[in-house]
Amino acid sequence: MPDSGYAPQYGPSQGFVEICEAGTRDGLQIESQIIPAAEKIALVDAMLDSGIRHVEVTSFVSPRAVPQMADAEEVLRGIRKRADTNLMALVPNLRGAERALTTPVDGGVLLISASETHNRKNLNRGIDESLESFPAVAARLRDGGKEVLGGVAVAFGCPFEGEVDLDGIIRIGQVYASLGVRHMTLGDTTGMAAPRNVRRTLRALRAALPSMEFTMHLHNTRGVGLANVLVSLEEGVRRFDSAAGGLGGCPFAAGATGNICTEDLVYLLDESNWTTGIDLEKSIAVAKRMETLLGRALPGQVMRAGPRLRLHAVDAVPTAAG
Amino acid sequence: MPDSGYAPQYGPSQGFVEICEAGTRDGLQIESQIIPAAEKIALVDAMLDSGIRHVEVTSFVSPRAVPQMADAEEVLRGIRKRADTNLMALVPNLRGAERALTTPVDGGVLLISASETHNRKNLNRGIDESLESFPAVAARLRDGGKEVLGGVAVAFGCPFEGEVDLDGIIRIGQVYASLGVRHMTLGDTTGMAAPRNVRRTLRALRAALPSMEFTMHLHNTRGVGLANVLVSLEEGVRRFDSAAGGLGGCPFAAGATGNICTEDLVYLLDESNWTTGIDLEKSIAVAKRMETLLGRALPGQVMRAGPRLRLHAVDAVPTAAG
Repeated sequence: MPDSGYAPQYGPSQGFVEICEAGTRDGLQIESQIIPAAEKIALVDAMLDSGIRHVEVTSFVSPRAVPQMADAEEVLRGIRKRADTNLMALVPNLRGAERALTTPVDGGVLLISASETHNRKNLNRGIDESLESFPAVAARLRDGGKEVLGGVAVAFGCPFEGEVDLDGIIRIGQVYASLGVRHMTLGDTTGMAAPRNVRRTLRALRAALPSMEFTMHLHNTRGVGLANVLVSLEEGVRRFDSAAGGLGGCPFAAGATGNICTEDLVYLLDESNWTTGIDLEKSIAVAKRMETLLGRALPGQVMRAGPRLRLHAVDAVPTAAG
Repeated sequence: MPDSGYAPQYGPSQGFVEICEAGTRDGLQIESQIIPAAEKIALVDAMLDSGIRHVEVTSFVSPRAVPQMADAEEVLRGIRKRADTNLMALVPNLRGAERALTTPVDGGVLLISASETHNRKNLNRGIDESLESFPAVAARLRDGGKEVLGGVAVAFGCPFEGEVDLDGIIRIGQVYASLGVRHMTLGDTTGMAAPRNVRRTLRALRAALPSMEFTMHLHNTRGVGLANVLVSLEEGVRRFDSAAGGLGGCPFAAGATGNICTEDLVYLLDESNWTTGIDLEKSIAVAKRMETLLGRALPGQVMRAGPRLRLHAVDAVPTAAG
């Protein structure tokens, strides 16, 4: 494992936690400025170099709907894959599956929303129609040698409908399980996850779907993203999505932050004796590269303050009593 | 208890958590723009109206050192106190104690740093000299009918020295205990607290000082402030300092956030089944008032996104697939 040497270990590792980088997909998809494919490729290469092994690179959505993702094939083909690299992409339909098969992507993520209104708004169809479309898409991906993963958007609350129905998420999970899906991502799409409903949701889903592994896709829209990580760890989750620099946003809240921030998550896990295999300094460098690329400050905190034991000269700055 | 009605309770309360508002003291002290006393008074009145009962209002530091605190007496005298209100102020020396006695402040907070270098830089004297000054200051406050509280700055790491010596903090706590101090505040002055050292520090201090109550004064400099709250709750802490809007800053990190944010903390605790007695909507209004007063955006998140169940019209905003 890479080790920057700044984080003294007071105890043995609590285990391994997998971080899935989602910055180039969930982060960049709402950026109006089109980022050149070569830059996206360089970003993912830098993420992999930091120790990240799972990257949700892009989305095989219609280029008309999301122009930022029109270069999905080019980006996936350009990444310097390693033997243990796992590249993923959203696959919203059969056309997306066909496109995925022409690339070195390792897995395709199916997507559905936990609420009918969000599913219709996001995917332009009802939940039942989405579920009925899944077997053909999953079969095409698997026949092409790709892993099939399952996502659920607004799993912790819908900005239109409010609380979502847990039985509905369990039903989606049962369909995923029937299609051989082993990893199901619970999307906190607009930052409505909080300790109580994280615990309640994870307990219900783990009980109903005992062989499914859950990935938490948390946003920091209401400031509690990393607190939700600790709660999720207590509830047995060992895989989290995050975005370099905390990129991404919530279209319902101007100024609100987006995905939980990869390097802040690495810092939290390092400082809680979890092993991630990710080098914090390299992770910070990726976030700074993202800031430079977009030309604005991102919400990440550790990239400003540095690791906690980066010391300061005594005369460098004034302090005020207190 | 006030109840905004948006947060369904899925379980019984885990208990009461006291939030001490520190915005007008630790938040404003580094602001170069002098805020009029009347505005500070109105802010504290609004905090009290939101359900806050403990406010660290100001500091009896030399007006030459911190001009923002020169109006300490005027502010304390102007606040509309209630029977259950607890107003506190920093009292750095005997001169400060004399000033405190002329005001309706309920408690004076003694201050010392866990590291020799930070104590010298912040208070212009060594740790031993600070400890030797405490009995006279404490006696003066208590003789004047004021509670005596104890603070320790850089308790989770010093930006100059790095890790701090736990035995040194225990020694400070023993001096505080000998002076009748019942509440000791552990200051995460530059945001170096993280789950591992929070747990380690609290376990050691609670074992060495079994009759002391600890208040956690956390900063969000590295993004893990609210995660540290959850860890502190697990370790038995039931009192936290925070600042409206996340005001305050770390002079060592441009752009880094300061104190953990009061309204985000209220949201986290509400959503974890802890009772605070604070109305989230009123707490958000205080933060917005602080933003207006300072003329800039503050780091708080819930004040941008709103409580999680504030719903949106379906046609209000576009979404992108995923």
